[in-house]
Amino acid sequence: RSNARAAAAASSSMQSFPHLQPSHRDLMSDLLSAVEARLGPTLLPSSVPPDVLSFTNQQGTSQGALDIRSGAPDSPVDFILQSWLHCKVPIGDLNITTLFAFLNASVDAPHLVLEFIQGSPTSLILLMDLIPRKDLVLHPEYLDEIYDKTHLDKRRQALARLPQVSPYISSSLYIRSVLSPTAISVNIDCGGEGESGIEEIILLHVGPAAKDIVGIWLDLCTSRTRDLGEAERAEMVRRDTLIKNKTVEIDLAANLPRLFGSDVVDRIVREIQKAFRI
Amino acid sequence: RSNARAAAAASSSMQSFPHLQPSHRDLMSDLLSAVEARLGPTLLPSSVPPDVLSFTNQQGTSQGALDIRSGAPDSPVDFILQSWLHCKVPIGDLNITTLFAFLNASVDAPHLVLEFIQGSPTSLILLMDLIPRKDLVLHPEYLDEIYDKTHLDKRRQALARLPQVSPYISSSLYIRSVLSPTAISVNIDCGGEGESGIEEIILLHVGPAAKDIVGIWLDLCTSRTRDLGEAERAEMVRRDTLIKNKTVEIDLAANLPRLFGSDVVDRIVREIQKAFRI
Repeated sequence: RSNARAAAAASSSMQSFPHLQPSHRDLMSDLLSAVEARLGPTLLPSSVPPDVLSFTNQQGTSQGALDIRSGAPDSPVDFILQSWLHCKVPIGDLNITTLFAFLNASVDAPHLVLEFIQGSPTSLILLMDLIPRKDLVLHPEYLDEIYDKTHLDKRRQALARLPQVSPYISSSLYIRSVLSPTAISVNIDCGGEGESGIEEIILLHVGPAAKDIVGIWLDLCTSRTRDLGEAERAEMVRRDTLIKNKTVEIDLAANLPRLFGSDVVDRIVREIQKAFRI
Repeated sequence: RSNARAAAAASSSMQSFPHLQPSHRDLMSDLLSAVEARLGPTLLPSSVPPDVLSFTNQQGTSQGALDIRSGAPDSPVDFILQSWLHCKVPIGDLNITTLFAFLNASVDAPHLVLEFIQGSPTSLILLMDLIPRKDLVLHPEYLDEIYDKTHLDKRRQALARLPQVSPYISSSLYIRSVLSPTAISVNIDCGGEGESGIEEIILLHVGPAAKDIVGIWLDLCTSRTRDLGEAERAEMVRRDTLIKNKTVEIDLAANLPRLFGSDVVDRIVREIQKAFRI
């Protein structure tokens, strides 16, 4: 019973994003609601324990929340991971918000990744992409249907044109290879304009782009359900497994221990690996 | 005999780059010499006819030169294509220089692409890449050996740091998919500094990077010779064929007719398709 209460409290902390600026928090809520409305009924309840649903480091300077829900047998979803981290670091507050929706082999629709890394109140690294399930060089028809016909690049172009926006290039060559050619991977710097600059850019530009991209993705999740050939499916699973393994290795194992200590991180990584089945 | 003389004259025009600025011309000569020194002995003589080795449009406002040499049976080279185009367009002179070296299925070393598109005396679009032969998401060991261990990204980073340099993003999603994660695809604009600005950037930055990249590529051409499995080779050939087909479709068929008229372009495209065997 006290476990159930702790879980409920932790889960509500997950959803409330206590440390984000208002427009950023509203955007995250809107995106999660959109995903929940369409895919929620096909998801299993969370099985993440309370000490992963919500966690802190020993000194209490870093807090985080992580929830993962797996798809039911008839769902196109493998799992949906959402998390936020809030860390007091020497140069200020670091806030990282992540939504990562991985599909299973019943569809060849792309995976969804949304990551907001806010290293100061006036700057934001933004990563939004629909991650290809296939080698786009070998599958130009997939490139055409998923990325060209949906006009995803227009969203990228519109953001790239803003004077506060510059490209953000991951230091990992593997992460760069995983991204699609329409990936939005940018650094937004509103130095002169202060916090209201970021608020406004999220409200006017990032928000509409993110909602569009999530909308396109939700449509693809259902429209791309079709009979895949045995070999095609096996190749896709092999590719997905590699992406899962490498992203855990690069993303989590590399940065989290510094912020939370290895005990907390071991717990989190174990939970993720269980959901990822890697 | 007059044909042989015309061919010799046309071929020497190919090598002399009559319309380029000095540092750009010297760089192209150096790069071609480096490739010739290492791979020349494994190449067959050119079989490109004089009216493709050198061509103009009807009005005489656009000139071009194209040579293609195929690899001998024991060469790692499929073909090496080099070309320049010089066109008087309403906004000034357009100069495009291309070196494209495609390998055959005896090696899994990357293809080499170098393209300089100079739309004005003070600006330059530069594309330099070693094009992967495999899906890098499925083959992280290939990514590691070809791109990470060779420190190719340091060259890209050094150029990206220059204040005159900004990213150049191809409008074709397919071209973006074909490029490696360390591709140099940039726009160099020396507006204020005039022609000497571009000269200096080529001399101090672009040249050293290009020579390094070509050197790395030449080493890979010979060091990656090894027994590839049957399935691996078949997949690589399928991928290469798609890249050849799509780049001809996107690159040549889209822009050349406007500049040279369809008769000239048909001749050129026919010659390229013969060499590409597509």
